[in-house]
Amino acid sequence: MDDTPEKSKAHDNIEDNLDQVVSLLRKHHLVANLVHKQDMPHHDLVEGLVHKQHLAELHTVLDDMHPADVARVLEALPLGDRLLVWDLVKAERDGEILLEVSDAVRESLIKSMDSDELLAAAETLDTDEIADLAPDLPQDVIQDLLESLDAQKRARLQSALSYPEDSVGALMDYDMVTIRADVTLEVALRYLRRLKELPDQTDKLFVVDRDGALRGVMPLQRLLLQDPEAKVADVMAEEVVTFRPQDDATDAAQAFERYDLVSAPVVDARNRLVGRLTVNAVVDYIRQESDSDMLSIAGLREDEDIFSSVWKSVQNRWAWLAINLVTAFIASRVIGMFENTIGKLVALAALMPIIAGIGGNSGNQTITMIVRALALGQIHPDNARKLFTKEISVAALNGLIWGSMVGLFAYLLYGKPALGLVMMGAMTLNLLLAAVMGVSIPMLMHKFGRDPAVGSSVLITAVTDSGGFFIFLGLATLFMAYLG
Amino acid sequence: MDDTPEKSKAHDNIEDNLDQVVSLLRKHHLVANLVHKQDMPHHDLVEGLVHKQHLAELHTVLDDMHPADVARVLEALPLGDRLLVWDLVKAERDGEILLEVSDAVRESLIKSMDSDELLAAAETLDTDEIADLAPDLPQDVIQDLLESLDAQKRARLQSALSYPEDSVGALMDYDMVTIRADVTLEVALRYLRRLKELPDQTDKLFVVDRDGALRGVMPLQRLLLQDPEAKVADVMAEEVVTFRPQDDATDAAQAFERYDLVSAPVVDARNRLVGRLTVNAVVDYIRQESDSDMLSIAGLREDEDIFSSVWKSVQNRWAWLAINLVTAFIASRVIGMFENTIGKLVALAALMPIIAGIGGNSGNQTITMIVRALALGQIHPDNARKLFTKEISVAALNGLIWGSMVGLFAYLLYGKPALGLVMMGAMTLNLLLAAVMGVSIPMLMHKFGRDPAVGSSVLITAVTDSGGFFIFLGLATLFMAYLG
Repeated sequence: MDDTPEKSKAHDNIEDNLDQVVSLLRKHHLVANLVHKQDMPHHDLVEGLVHKQHLAELHTVLDDMHPADVARVLEALPLGDRLLVWDLVKAERDGEILLEVSDAVRESLIKSMDSDELLAAAETLDTDEIADLAPDLPQDVIQDLLESLDAQKRARLQSALSYPEDSVGALMDYDMVTIRADVTLEVALRYLRRLKELPDQTDKLFVVDRDGALRGVMPLQRLLLQDPEAKVADVMAEEVVTFRPQDDATDAAQAFERYDLVSAPVVDARNRLVGRLTVNAVVDYIRQESDSDMLSIAGLREDEDIFSSVWKSVQNRWAWLAINLVTAFIASRVIGMFENTIGKLVALAALMPIIAGIGGNSGNQTITMIVRALALGQIHPDNARKLFTKEISVAALNGLIWGSMVGLFAYLLYGKPALGLVMMGAMTLNLLLAAVMGVSIPMLMHKFGRDPAVGSSVLITAVTDSGGFFIFLGLATLFMAYLG
Repeated sequence: MDDTPEKSKAHDNIEDNLDQVVSLLRKHHLVANLVHKQDMPHHDLVEGLVHKQHLAELHTVLDDMHPADVARVLEALPLGDRLLVWDLVKAERDGEILLEVSDAVRESLIKSMDSDELLAAAETLDTDEIADLAPDLPQDVIQDLLESLDAQKRARLQSALSYPEDSVGALMDYDMVTIRADVTLEVALRYLRRLKELPDQTDKLFVVDRDGALRGVMPLQRLLLQDPEAKVADVMAEEVVTFRPQDDATDAAQAFERYDLVSAPVVDARNRLVGRLTVNAVVDYIRQESDSDMLSIAGLREDEDIFSSVWKSVQNRWAWLAINLVTAFIASRVIGMFENTIGKLVALAALMPIIAGIGGNSGNQTITMIVRALALGQIHPDNARKLFTKEISVAALNGLIWGSMVGLFAYLLYGKPALGLVMMGAMTLNLLLAAVMGVSIPMLMHKFGRDPAVGSSVLITAVTDSGGFFIFLGLATLFMAYLG
């Protein structure tokens, strides 16, 4: 297949597509409502025809759209309209569209299909694509699918299902075109012509020996430009970037970025070719990863269908809110310890959120830097101490600058110089705490093999809240004699 | 050029590279220190030799590395070591390595080079690559460069420099291979063989007419598989995804993802070919965008060199801390309005951060959802109201659930049922506020053409903090009679 969609001159704009579908749906609903309201049989008939006409038009519009565009439209429609549009999509396109929609929307579409429809949809797909859908398919459909496949495909599906989510094995496909090293380019070309077409994103062929072991790759470029009489062995590239199925997908994505790859062979421990990784799978993975980072920073468990039910949304947001509740309770109890002090000087209650808030912001800045540096492999035992020193210096300097500002603010408001000094001291100490924890938390999580991005923001904010309240109210208690 | 790096069998691990360089550097420093400490001339000589030997070894190691790998190593080294390694890199590789390093690190490297070195480095690059470096180059180097280029390249560089940062024009390159429609594939192939090699990421040739207008594209696949006697016009794909230089880069990136493109032509208003966009430029752009989203969420102005000076870091973090300071002052004054109430019941001071904190978390969840949906084009005037209703329902339900928990907590701690009810009411109201503002803020920013991602988290937190304190302390003041 070519990767050239045969339908759009300039690239399609999702908003244009959506406008078109929505305006047809609106006409359809308008008519449906009319039919519903007016119970006269004559009207019913006429309106029913108009109604059908809109649906037919919608049908044509959808047929002309690229599957990825249909997917975007489905994601942007509320559940009722979504299922109406989904019914209008040709059954043989169901599989490819299911692959394109987000997890949450896929779930809603699959729920509306029976086992036969699902089986038919899955059978239009490649093994690696079926594996991508599998987590959302009912067990009986997967069983039926496994039985319907031939031995090689069944084995591939089973192994594809066995790879962990963030591994190269889960991203790779099986569309590799292989040739032998001992033939001429001319022979290889004749073989290709018999295939009629090459898989998407084929920029190189894989050269394997009799046992399926990878000997090199033959870029299509060389096949085109080199002498047809030459042997594959003499023209192929022997030093190749290869991956293992169990490799981390993030590392593979970085290798694709660094070396500007379009496709790369995946080999097993004995160097036998088992699959291929393509840049489009890598791009999807990068997008999905950056999405899930953003979601977890905001405290969402997973991608949410914006039109999912209220109850589903509550569940999705539950986990982080619960953690946040615990940290808020702790902060509350820290303040509770100092109720006496606050009773003596109520101004402290008004000032304390400043210390906690700016500490949280500064801690989040530090932790984001460190999480990124860890992800990019920039942190090394040798330079970790340098980083610590730097972050602590930044915090100390910021503490002096911002601390004197908040101190001045407190002094001007309440006319007590000692209160200003306590604010300044507390601010500096809380920024130092934020810096130390902002470096330590992700480094420790990394050391113990956890993803430092997940929950780091919640953790650092918890520390700077409770810590900030403790430092500020503690200092105020110590120096209460001068504050009264 | 092939995109197959000729050096690594399995993909290189940045940590291995870094380990190797660091251990050589460590040996080097060790020796340098010894030389420094022992002032005997004999030792000096011997150690000096050993010292040179380590540097020579480092030289070899660096020469064998892919430019992208050298870039990663430079980013992970503190300034002193970084410049030492940079000096060891062959001058003719300076240009390609400067392209690969992050903006902040590039700045530090460029600062260490004189005009002649910079000019020499830039002259090894393509026009579009020079344009990428240009913002960091001194004005006199750019002038010298413009003078050294031929007329076509100068015109290209000037137009490349004129495109805004997030446009297709800024991402595109000029490595297009063009053919005519009226020749046979055989003739086209002969022409290609004369070129000897094709630019990276060439998966299609561009078919243009006499005036340079795009008539179609010829995928390399078709060139390989179709009858060599056929005319280009009969084999080429005429419906092509094309871009304009002024198109938004984000839209282009989404089109690459949707249609799994490897390269695409960029045309002007009269459909004349002006450049080409490739998937590697798109991948870099996606990575950079998701990075800058994360940075702005955390309140960092830009990508930071983790080893930059303390003063530079303070400046980078300054802007958001200042905004945060203003919002914290406002929240503090809101509390200040209720000092009387807090004076009567100090427990309120301990409980108020719970209301503000959970409101902020919930608001950030909503705003993240909406920002993503806007970016994906999922929000449409027709469904905006549905979204509002849904988010408000989720907030109301969460308010009841979490509100009763915090209410119970307050009641158990302080033994006052009315305090529990005030907590529950304040929590529900603050979550509703968070939902309304979490939907409205990004929608309004989007409507007025601003990027809804930037600063949204700071804004929503400001609203839920000040709003939460106001609601909670206001309710407490109203019902003080029952709380005393």
